[in-house]
Amino acid sequence: MIIVMNGKTDDADVEKIVKKLNEMGHEVHVIRGERRIVLGVIGDVENLASVPFYAFKGVEEIIRIMKPYKLASREFKDFNTIIKVKDITIGGKEVIVMAGPCVVENEKQIFETAQQVKASGAKILRGGAFKPRTSPYSFQGLGEEGLKLLAQAGKETGLAVVTEVMSVNQIDLVAEYTDIFQVGARNMQNFVLLKELGKTKKPILLKRGMAATIEELLLSAEYILTQGNYEVILCERGIRTFEDYTRNTLDLSAIPALKRLSHLPIIVD
Amino acid sequence: MIIVMNGKTDDADVEKIVKKLNEMGHEVHVIRGERRIVLGVIGDVENLASVPFYAFKGVEEIIRIMKPYKLASREFKDFNTIIKVKDITIGGKEVIVMAGPCVVENEKQIFETAQQVKASGAKILRGGAFKPRTSPYSFQGLGEEGLKLLAQAGKETGLAVVTEVMSVNQIDLVAEYTDIFQVGARNMQNFVLLKELGKTKKPILLKRGMAATIEELLLSAEYILTQGNYEVILCERGIRTFEDYTRNTLDLSAIPALKRLSHLPIIVD
Amino acid sequence: MIIVMNGKTDDADVEKIVKKLNEMGHEVHVIRGERRIVLGVIGDVENLASVPFYAFKGVEEIIRIMKPYKLASREFKDFNTIIKVKDITIGGKEVIVMAGPCVVENEKQIFETAQQVKASGAKILRGGAFKPRTSPYSFQGLGEEGLKLLAQAGKETGLAVVTEVMSVNQIDLVAEYTDIFQVGARNMQNFVLLKELGKTKKPILLKRGMAATIEELLLSAEYILTQGNYEVILCERGIRTFEDYTRNTLDLSAIPALKRLSHLPIIVD
Amino acid sequence: MIIVMNGKTDDADVEKIVKKLNEMGHEVHVIRGERRIVLGVIGDVENLASVPFYAFKGVEEIIRIMKPYKLASREFKDFNTIIKVKDITIGGKEVIVMAGPCVVENEKQIFETAQQVKASGAKILRGGAFKPRTSPYSFQGLGEEGLKLLAQAGKETGLAVVTEVMSVNQIDLVAEYTDIFQVGARNMQNFVLLKELGKTKKPILLKRGMAATIEELLLSAEYILTQGNYEVILCERGIRTFEDYTRNTLDLSAIPALKRLSHLPIIVD
Repeated sequence: MIIVMNGKTDDADVEKIVKKLNEMGHEVHVIRGERRIVLGVIGDVENLASVPFYAFKGVEEIIRIMKPYKLASREFKDFNTIIKVKDITIGGKEVIVMAGPCVVENEKQIFETAQQVKASGAKILRGGAFKPRTSPYSFQGLGEEGLKLLAQAGKETGLAVVTEVMSVNQIDLVAEYTDIFQVGARNMQNFVLLKELGKTKKPILLKRGMAATIEELLLSAEYILTQGNYEVILCERGIRTFEDYTRNTLDLSAIPALKRLSHLPIIVD
Repeated sequence: MIIVMNGKTDDADVEKIVKKLNEMGHEVHVIRGERRIVLGVIGDVENLASVPFYAFKGVEEIIRIMKPYKLASREFKDFNTIIKVKDITIGGKEVIVMAGPCVVENEKQIFETAQQVKASGAKILRGGAFKPRTSPYSFQGLGEEGLKLLAQAGKETGLAVVTEVMSVNQIDLVAEYTDIFQVGARNMQNFVLLKELGKTKKPILLKRGMAATIEELLLSAEYILTQGNYEVILCERGIRTFEDYTRNTLDLSAIPALKRLSHLPIIVD
Repeated sequence: MIIVMNGKTDDADVEKIVKKLNEMGHEVHVIRGERRIVLGVIGDVENLASVPFYAFKGVEEIIRIMKPYKLASREFKDFNTIIKVKDITIGGKEVIVMAGPCVVENEKQIFETAQQVKASGAKILRGGAFKPRTSPYSFQGLGEEGLKLLAQAGKETGLAVVTEVMSVNQIDLVAEYTDIFQVGARNMQNFVLLKELGKTKKPILLKRGMAATIEELLLSAEYILTQGNYEVILCERGIRTFEDYTRNTLDLSAIPALKRLSHLPIIVD
Repeated sequence: MIIVMNGKTDDADVEKIVKKLNEMGHEVHVIRGERRIVLGVIGDVENLASVPFYAFKGVEEIIRIMKPYKLASREFKDFNTIIKVKDITIGGKEVIVMAGPCVVENEKQIFETAQQVKASGAKILRGGAFKPRTSPYSFQGLGEEGLKLLAQAGKETGLAVVTEVMSVNQIDLVAEYTDIFQVGARNMQNFVLLKELGKTKKPILLKRGMAATIEELLLSAEYILTQGNYEVILCERGIRTFEDYTRNTLDLSAIPALKRLSHLPIIVD
């Protein structure tokens, strides 16, 4: 961590912060420039999160050097995470395609679509049974009936299936039918849900929130990883910007950025 | 609903849409301009939501005229909603202040803060017991212990209390201690949570999501209202923009906009 | 144009607007729904731009149907615009690459770079001589000396050249050396500059502004087209969003959108 | 400046950067943490702007400590800048109101408005003669005729006047009539215009660009200040966000932020 202080700060005020940091177990390097004094704080600064450094006299800026996520980072794990679902390998050389309808509507629709999905070379069938809808008046999905149809369509075609889980109390039910849990963009920071999913044994497809930074997406993945489930698939699906000609703006450069920062596989929606 | 078609569209293609609309029970007015043909569709168009009009030949734009929310709208209810919590009136002439720490840390902190909150004229004490944190490594709140302390501090000072509920499985527990449920910005579109809160009898403080439009905020309120709980307090707390000097950009003009569109009370965070 | 009025508006108030529209030469269709009255206004509504319709009683929304740009639109011109620069064809089947340094620094740099640009198959050499810099303390380019070096490097390698013009008083000078004028993102709405460039005979590479919508980009192109220069190359180069891991967020979907709306060629930066 | 390197970087690679920095005249402090090596670079780092530090092995992040603007900063000048226009003091205790029509349309309109502006206590009359319009088909202002009318209306009522200048070649003309030059949001980064205005002796009202950060606004002010004109009035007028219910989102917190960072007066539009 770097603490930037005004160059005119009294020595006594600088000393106060240094002492505080020392007391909390950190080595501090003081660099004096003409107009700024810079304190370099060594070590894991987790224990400093709640210290209100901005309240100390002379402090102008606090700059964190370490990324706040760990298990999701390349530093923690150098090689790419590979996730096996049935005989499918996600995160390897092969590009895996997931396809299917937004929502499972009826038997005919999902079975016919599954056939087409299979025929066009995709490996995973997606389809919503529980749908997060902006309006309470929109169709909210078929629920368990939809899950059953999806699972049957997957079985018949030999496709793995992925479907959304919206709440902790749906996890057990959804787990009976799906191969991969999907967390929707609106639930990317539903931390209670993330933690519970972290205790399951199935891969999680984690969609980036509409206004989530790359760091926030990785921190949400971290919530799952810290619970022991290391099989998280990140999903870039566009962010909300001022441009409204398209519904979302796909953030293409997030993909190489995520690949650089994390070992987790990434999918584009 | 307005359907805009290219002016060069064949009569037969225009007729196809008109027929479809008639079949679904709607009266249609066709207005022919030089370069556009405009279809005005009369009546409640809810049943048209799933018709893929863009797939019809000649269709250029679909414009919805009616707001998608109803119970939250001024049209549904002309006069302001007033919410009574103990002897406090929210949504009336008086400006009500809610204050308190981000998170309940310990007895001393919350009791001392409550005294100050009371002394400075605020009517409602807030404090988090379950905290949605971007990082899994940040302090997540004291849980039930925090709720107890908050409720005691409220009792002792005569302040009403408000605290966040993050998940369906916390509702009963939080309800024992709080006067008002708070739904955080990250959960504004956690529709499962909204629906369950709609079945409770306590007021809901609904925070606007970081990237939520005014319409989406009102639709989230609508989720609660449709379940029978009409006591929703909207909360404008800033949106995410490119400017990062401040953490959020307070959208001040959302307040008169919300007041114009809805009868629900609004609070600024 | 569509004018949406509240369904409870008095007939006399509806009549007032209709009369006003008729007086201004427009035919009006009145469609009465349960909760809304919709007025469909026929014809070119340019002359209505300054009428404050929102001030009329009962008016809730004004919806423009026609795109505000004309010469840039597909409706005006169905087939793609092809721009010839030397023996290069921009806007045809071939993908043309422009490459080169951000700024021309010295002879060695620009000549060596030009060789590499040529060798790697690009057809156009770019390099800044006048640089719009966020800070006045950053290097602002070599000016005419930079233009000369760029033109010589282009000549020697047989590459066409493109360079930025920042102001009306630089047009003549830049025109002596460049094959294509570049308008930078920060000048996309420098309308005085656009108009003057519209009077020249050289192609204009028009970069999308950081916060410009697709419609605004096309309207800026329209400024050039209305002056008689039809050779505008649109350039998508990323927009400003809340995500700051990358400097700009490339708006990939703007490209098919622009191709659908306009006949002008598009380049990605 | 702080250079953050990966903790596993070879000593030789760290040494390479340190040597480069020393050669360029900078003292460097090396702080070794467990997972990061931090280089603190002392002194004015202006001369390092063009060194591609990210290309050095092991470099992860470059963090600038000093604000890039100087003359506009509170560090340069502790006390508030006060600007005198006629007998009006801008930037002092008194809140000054500027009012008037968007555009000067005709004699009657501007004279009547000026009377009302005067009567309601405002001190400065605004009105556009050269209007930057998104569409080339919108009314572009009366030009010199508009300037004359505005100046006369100001004279008659004793109000000072402010009007927009869009281009370098309009400066002399506008200067004849106005008391304050206005630079519109779309021209905030028209650096050629800013530099020329910096050579004039009249105050400049500088509007924040639609997507300009606070730092960029201050850097644009810096362009004017470096030319010798210290009378810049900053103007916060809303930024572009995803919310489109209102045309712009007023960034209210930019005002205290600007007051903290700069001595220049601020006006809200």
